[in-house]
Amino acid sequence: MRRGSNQLRLADYNQAVVLELVRRSRGVSRADLQRESGLSSQTISNITRRLIDEQLIRESTPGGSARGRPSIPLVTDPDGAYSVGVHIDPARLTVVLLDLAGEVRLGRQEHTPQVTDPSEVTAFIADTVHGLITEAGVDRARVLGLGIAAPGPLDADAGVLLDPPQLPNWRDVRLGADLREATGLPVLLGKDVTAAATAELRASQETSNTFVFLYLGSGVGASVVLDNQVVRGTTNNIGEVGDLLVDSDAEQLEWSGRRGGLAAACVPEALVLQAARVGLMPLPDLNDYVAVDDACSALCARAAEGDAVAARLLRRAAHRVAVGLGVLVNLLDVPRVVIGGPLWDRLSPAFLPVMGDLVARELVAARGVEVQGSAVGDRVAAQGAAELVLDQFLAPRASALMVGRPARGDG
Amino acid sequence: MRRGSNQLRLADYNQAVVLELVRRSRGVSRADLQRESGLSSQTISNITRRLIDEQLIRESTPGGSARGRPSIPLVTDPDGAYSVGVHIDPARLTVVLLDLAGEVRLGRQEHTPQVTDPSEVTAFIADTVHGLITEAGVDRARVLGLGIAAPGPLDADAGVLLDPPQLPNWRDVRLGADLREATGLPVLLGKDVTAAATAELRASQETSNTFVFLYLGSGVGASVVLDNQVVRGTTNNIGEVGDLLVDSDAEQLEWSGRRGGLAAACVPEALVLQAARVGLMPLPDLNDYVAVDDACSALCARAAEGDAVAARLLRRAAHRVAVGLGVLVNLLDVPRVVIGGPLWDRLSPAFLPVMGDLVARELVAARGVEVQGSAVGDRVAAQGAAELVLDQFLAPRASALMVGRPARGDG
Repeated sequence: MRRGSNQLRLADYNQAVVLELVRRSRGVSRADLQRESGLSSQTISNITRRLIDEQLIRESTPGGSARGRPSIPLVTDPDGAYSVGVHIDPARLTVVLLDLAGEVRLGRQEHTPQVTDPSEVTAFIADTVHGLITEAGVDRARVLGLGIAAPGPLDADAGVLLDPPQLPNWRDVRLGADLREATGLPVLLGKDVTAAATAELRASQETSNTFVFLYLGSGVGASVVLDNQVVRGTTNNIGEVGDLLVDSDAEQLEWSGRRGGLAAACVPEALVLQAARVGLMPLPDLNDYVAVDDACSALCARAAEGDAVAARLLRRAAHRVAVGLGVLVNLLDVPRVVIGGPLWDRLSPAFLPVMGDLVARELVAARGVEVQGSAVGDRVAAQGAAELVLDQFLAPRASALMVGRPARGDG
Repeated sequence: MRRGSNQLRLADYNQAVVLELVRRSRGVSRADLQRESGLSSQTISNITRRLIDEQLIRESTPGGSARGRPSIPLVTDPDGAYSVGVHIDPARLTVVLLDLAGEVRLGRQEHTPQVTDPSEVTAFIADTVHGLITEAGVDRARVLGLGIAAPGPLDADAGVLLDPPQLPNWRDVRLGADLREATGLPVLLGKDVTAAATAELRASQETSNTFVFLYLGSGVGASVVLDNQVVRGTTNNIGEVGDLLVDSDAEQLEWSGRRGGLAAACVPEALVLQAARVGLMPLPDLNDYVAVDDACSALCARAAEGDAVAARLLRRAAHRVAVGLGVLVNLLDVPRVVIGGPLWDRLSPAFLPVMGDLVARELVAARGVEVQGSAVGDRVAAQGAAELVLDQFLAPRASALMVGRPARGDG
């Protein structure tokens, strides 16, 4: 019994190893797979036949340059499986359908419903997900699951939002269970910043990735990638940097955030409060995240159009954010900072040209740091949530095997 | 040629694997080694014979409880190899001799010479190291090397101190080369906080270790251990947290540090400046780290004796340090903070009883955090530097082998 069960797991594991090698390549021959996996030629032959039968991979057209009989490259079959990623920002709901090749097949951004009952948001998400799958016209049975990227703190294992400051009334909401029931899909809950870092890491062209990801949306957060590994934190709640002090002389805003903190420096609510204070615009309803987000868009647009007061306000925000980034880089000694999230498109014209120099000024060691905008764009967290679902279902899990034993034998 | 070279490296690698298994155990049988390494019985037999011949391991007394013929436990031979660790704090120089069992055989703490020429300090270190080895009466040929823990920023690979704010006049000092020449020993340079975290990790009784180490000495620094791995930073300069803002309303001190920063909250120079300002003591010569350190000792002693002003000053320092630790815990989501370094013995009576609660107040997620004093004590960085030398010379290096291939074959 025991032995049989181990062998079954080994076969599954080896199949997952091979699928992973195909997913991470742009076309790989059976000989390559044999070399990279250490599995026998017969095992590779069996596994690839099974993966082709299951429509998870397919044979592609051989290149013509090599001598002799060209080897047939195996590639992922994009329609073999899908996942859906949802990013719940308090103002913007982003939903993407990802295919097995890691491409976004269809994406959508909606206003997050400004309601007091979280179940209305859950229902809205379920409807949006359903609509997206239908509109994409893909086989629903091949949608592996639903990944949710949400503000923390959260209990990822239980699928519960604990008490996110960004989502009032969402105390102890069983988002995982509720969405599973509403959609019929397995649900994976993760933190917005972690999901964003995951997508950014996958999109990177570098072989070695160590960076801090600064997330700017209705809230601010950070995540860390060390040597191509996304750091999640012991309770999956990495990156709460809103209270990090960045300006001792900052004004006291009429809100709950810490005076002089990173959140007070750059989240839409704080920027809008600052703008209203200097008479740039009337104050929107601060309980309405969409109204705040729209007001922030207006502020950024005015700065882009040359309004000196608006531009100065964003310049000050950039200085403060740079102090915060300096703290993170000084602490973690990373060579790169990536900034993204739903707010980034609007702030980047003011931030990106100056941020590298501003952060460099904060550094103790003269090591230099590169500051970049997200390569993925403002759906980065939704995409990362969808990628985490594909990984959850498809990636080989060493934990399922005995540690220290190489995976061998015929699959 | 190529093949032969690989086989030689494989044999060395396997020997290092076995030695590592013995070092990390409290006695392990040949059968255990075979199981844990995956190597053949014959290979284990060959390797252990060689390690015994080289006096790196020895046979210990079998326990009596098992049935049948008791297996002979193999243990490290403490006298098989040694390393020396030196911790250069600007005020205190700590030197330890570590044996192969990881025990400190002999340790010494001296005042760091307050001289403008770094070469005088280098000569003093070399003399101290020589004296320690002589006093311990160990075989000098078995001292593998010298580990140096120093304040950053530094270039660990080149063995050069770049421009440490804590060590004026030490700009671009080639400490590695100079000490190698002066002692005849291979030298490994590392950052104080990294060395401290290494020793703390080794001393831990936990199987899973994720923590932030806060280093308190003439300067303040931090290091991070994630899943039993010491994070070093891309340039080996992790943990520059002195500029981290912890008190927006802090007084302006007559020094070069950032107003309201973590260094201004807790390093001896800042504490002594604060004490002098409220009339507790005259100001020592601030260019003399030893004098500053002694004045700080006097301040801590007065607080311990019940002086209300001194106690209040340290209480305020504890509050500020807690804000800084809150930032680190909120960012990294670690369950534990360990505080140590040469200043810790003096601050812990004021800090330790209150720090857990103070940090908990700063946390966004109600996850709780444990705050502990170093289990190693104030020679933690010197000990860590010595441990890094043993690792450098003895630990198996996967990078020396092809990735993905298990190490097999007869060693």
